[in-house]
Amino acid sequence: MTKTVIQHVLSRLKDLGIKDVFGVAGDYAFPIEDAVCADSDMRWVGSCNELNAAYSADGYARIHGVSAVSTTYGVGELSAINGIAGAYAEFLPVFHLVGMPTSGVQKARRLVHHTLGNGEFDIFFDMAAPVVCARAVMTPENCIEETERLITAALRERRPVYMGFPSDYANMPVVGSTKAVVAPVSDPVALDTAVTRIVHSLLAASTACIVPGIQVARNGMADRALAVVNASNLPFTTMFMDKCVLDESHPNYIGMYDGQLMNEPVRAFVEGCDCVIGIGAMLSDFNSGSFTARIDRAKSVNILSDSVRVGSAIYPNVLMVDVLLELARRIPRKDVEAPRVEGLGEPVGKPGDRITAAYLYPRWEKMLKPNDMVIAETGTSSMGLGFAHMPQGATFQNQTLWGAIGWATPAAFGAAMAAPHRRAVLITGEGSHQLTAQEVSQFHRFGLKPLIFVLNNDGYLIERLLCRDGEAYYNDLAKWNYAKLPEALGCEGWFTARVTTCAELDAAIARAESCGTGAYIEVVTGRYEASPLSLKLHESLDTLYSA
Amino acid sequence: MTKTVIQHVLSRLKDLGIKDVFGVAGDYAFPIEDAVCADSDMRWVGSCNELNAAYSADGYARIHGVSAVSTTYGVGELSAINGIAGAYAEFLPVFHLVGMPTSGVQKARRLVHHTLGNGEFDIFFDMAAPVVCARAVMTPENCIEETERLITAALRERRPVYMGFPSDYANMPVVGSTKAVVAPVSDPVALDTAVTRIVHSLLAASTACIVPGIQVARNGMADRALAVVNASNLPFTTMFMDKCVLDESHPNYIGMYDGQLMNEPVRAFVEGCDCVIGIGAMLSDFNSGSFTARIDRAKSVNILSDSVRVGSAIYPNVLMVDVLLELARRIPRKDVEAPRVEGLGEPVGKPGDRITAAYLYPRWEKMLKPNDMVIAETGTSSMGLGFAHMPQGATFQNQTLWGAIGWATPAAFGAAMAAPHRRAVLITGEGSHQLTAQEVSQFHRFGLKPLIFVLNNDGYLIERLLCRDGEAYYNDLAKWNYAKLPEALGCEGWFTARVTTCAELDAAIARAESCGTGAYIEVVTGRYEASPLSLKLHESLDTLYSA
Repeated sequence: MTKTVIQHVLSRLKDLGIKDVFGVAGDYAFPIEDAVCADSDMRWVGSCNELNAAYSADGYARIHGVSAVSTTYGVGELSAINGIAGAYAEFLPVFHLVGMPTSGVQKARRLVHHTLGNGEFDIFFDMAAPVVCARAVMTPENCIEETERLITAALRERRPVYMGFPSDYANMPVVGSTKAVVAPVSDPVALDTAVTRIVHSLLAASTACIVPGIQVARNGMADRALAVVNASNLPFTTMFMDKCVLDESHPNYIGMYDGQLMNEPVRAFVEGCDCVIGIGAMLSDFNSGSFTARIDRAKSVNILSDSVRVGSAIYPNVLMVDVLLELARRIPRKDVEAPRVEGLGEPVGKPGDRITAAYLYPRWEKMLKPNDMVIAETGTSSMGLGFAHMPQGATFQNQTLWGAIGWATPAAFGAAMAAPHRRAVLITGEGSHQLTAQEVSQFHRFGLKPLIFVLNNDGYLIERLLCRDGEAYYNDLAKWNYAKLPEALGCEGWFTARVTTCAELDAAIARAESCGTGAYIEVVTGRYEASPLSLKLHESLDTLYSA
Repeated sequence: MTKTVIQHVLSRLKDLGIKDVFGVAGDYAFPIEDAVCADSDMRWVGSCNELNAAYSADGYARIHGVSAVSTTYGVGELSAINGIAGAYAEFLPVFHLVGMPTSGVQKARRLVHHTLGNGEFDIFFDMAAPVVCARAVMTPENCIEETERLITAALRERRPVYMGFPSDYANMPVVGSTKAVVAPVSDPVALDTAVTRIVHSLLAASTACIVPGIQVARNGMADRALAVVNASNLPFTTMFMDKCVLDESHPNYIGMYDGQLMNEPVRAFVEGCDCVIGIGAMLSDFNSGSFTARIDRAKSVNILSDSVRVGSAIYPNVLMVDVLLELARRIPRKDVEAPRVEGLGEPVGKPGDRITAAYLYPRWEKMLKPNDMVIAETGTSSMGLGFAHMPQGATFQNQTLWGAIGWATPAAFGAAMAAPHRRAVLITGEGSHQLTAQEVSQFHRFGLKPLIFVLNNDGYLIERLLCRDGEAYYNDLAKWNYAKLPEALGCEGWFTARVTTCAELDAAIARAESCGTGAYIEVVTGRYEASPLSLKLHESLDTLYSA
């Protein structure tokens, strides 16, 4: 039987492995929601609001590679747009399925709800343009071709796409048949030249290292990048945004590189190397120690999704996959002496002491287990845990470039949905948590058992450290009883606690690990208990904010 | 002393009566936040998230006329943009103050947080264009002129404006001095012709009525419109979006007009009138009984903000204020016999009965007091209460055109901030409440004592009524313990209750009215206990959705 427009799109998304659609129901999107619910291989995940749905889709895509979110026209899509923009900035292919008024209503320019009242129906589609890599309004006639175009764009660019569905068109049968899409291939001459130049650079170098970046994870290239590390025996380091793109338990991992702000031995080594091979890393402010990273461009290589830079030469039309395959084959093996920065060490504090940063972050590090998924919110808490040494198979997610506070709570839910058998550990400050806290209810609704820590330091601590007057009123928050939130949100049977001393924190972690349910722990600290990196940022405002 | 850019803008906003700035703090917006907190006549209102801040600014503007919201670059402004779009659709002049990276960072195209990582800094400013009536990036040189241009636009169009502040420019002294802005005036010939034609139409009519619309409230024209009603003695009716723009306790008020869906006597009278004088009303879907309203254009007049339509003739450049002044002077006095639809009548149900729609809505109506501010969420609950007869001075707010669920909770907070001595009554379904529930904490933080009702009917009831299969999974919600939410959100001492029977509802209302604190009442009903209008919509899907 011929599929309808929405059925066709969903079947292609299923081919990519997408089985969950996050979203908030709305009348113009009924055909999308009906089709998801009618498909026994798919699941509708009703989020509390649209921004949370988009953040959850972001988290899901970080673990699963791709994801989908559905919203209704105008009110829904605009509520989600900041989450879509974050997925754009951080290279996550999220399919945004938007329900629209019928084609007839649009043509008649009717004065209907969820519009600006001006008869214009392209406005929101156009507003989305800068934050997606491709977009289309789906019709029976264009559906097959446009679906392939959008999928190709999303997978190639690792960015979101927008698919609008006029509600009448969504339920009409598609016209035409699928044509094969030509997959991009590397330019063989450029590929060979680029790899040869990298190999020559390495042969001439006495010290060298690899800096794998976020694009390794986003392109599913961890195994291939690892093959290059293993073949070359080079040490590797990562920057903040890129933490855990390769396993930190690997013997060649030397610790995090954060410019002049942290881990001085790593900085001195990396910046002194004769050759630095980046794989899809980017030198943004928070990824470069507030622009204090100083890697000589002439001595460095960066392997991007579809191009390679060697020194000042750029080789376009060369795919990362091919470069890594070829490098693993041809790269020379080296023995480079490198420093190694271990993790955070032992927690400092006595059982009855108030919890300090010196106790908290090492304690969290000790708690981590293989294959944990850590989702760490923007702010001082992630800046502390970011320098923990992660166990085998564990991953660390942070929205380092986009940096929308509130992202982590729904993103952790999305990640947990993508991998329900891995432990999801959410680390968030209470200020950020307030933006999106209602999504905690969804973990329980879908039978997930996360480990949630809400760091309550009585305000936006990172802002206290970055602004002119830390005590400025705008850094204060409404005071919540966080530990009572899960019960109000229906998380029945969860273990919840509010801890203020080191012993209480230890006990709560022990209990959380044995309770067999979701756990939600409010960790109360002094208002200026800051992780080392956040203190360094406080001292480096000039490099952070000026041009 | 010369003011800085941000000080100048804030001083002009204060001239308009804006003393509260809603928002979420963020680093690029520190200069805005610092300036607000440094000004003893202004107050920073830290919202839980940016969308809630925008909704609160919307609610504040509904009561106070104008409002301001401040967010940071990218992440903040995009999170708020759906609320700004709602203010655009519903004619609310909200000043959106956005903190931006320094001009130097922008010019250098630096790879900084809260950007898409592509060196483009105009993207979000451009994305806002369709949902504001004017926008500018403020500099020391343009500040004085642009501030006046934006204020003029916001007040004339009753729409939001966008003001971007590069963080270095924000703290620089303004250059130049203020020039007087020429206020718009009516074209005297067009004004006289239009009013004369309206008067002639009325003289020739044996039946006539007035339909005041939302623009009366938005332009602060209630007294002037009332003067026209009093001078003419004409009966008046309102549509849903326009409820309470004139006081419903006025003897000439005949009840709500909602096309063929509700109040048949009102429909028959209005549609049978020889002359219908609209004052800034608009015939959107939910304002016209799903497009079942049938007012003969040839027999009707519509007085808009700066033009008048009489039959098919349009008179531009005629201000509402002048038309109403002139009409009040020249309109003939008439005695027109009209029907009068009273309110919802007596609640139907015995004390021990489960709460039904037949009990709930009349009971709520009886509870209302003079000067109450009712903020009613999109959905079945507002559709029920919308036909209540409101006491003297009471107002009713609903986002009828934009219809973003989740709007009401933060909007009620904004309204309460604008008029802390009036009672704020929030009526919301639990599905909508989940989107933005955290904002309940702000009422307590700012010492406000709202009366909040959360109607828990186990899902999105309006969607159950509008979609193909009411039992579809996407209409379900995570199950919360709503009555426990205020405590978790820090609302200490509040009266909270969960009621399932008529007697419990009565007792809770009585307690809420005497407790002297905020009150939060979860009202549990059967899942299909729907207000009459929402049942009518269920029966009129064809006219609602087709062109």
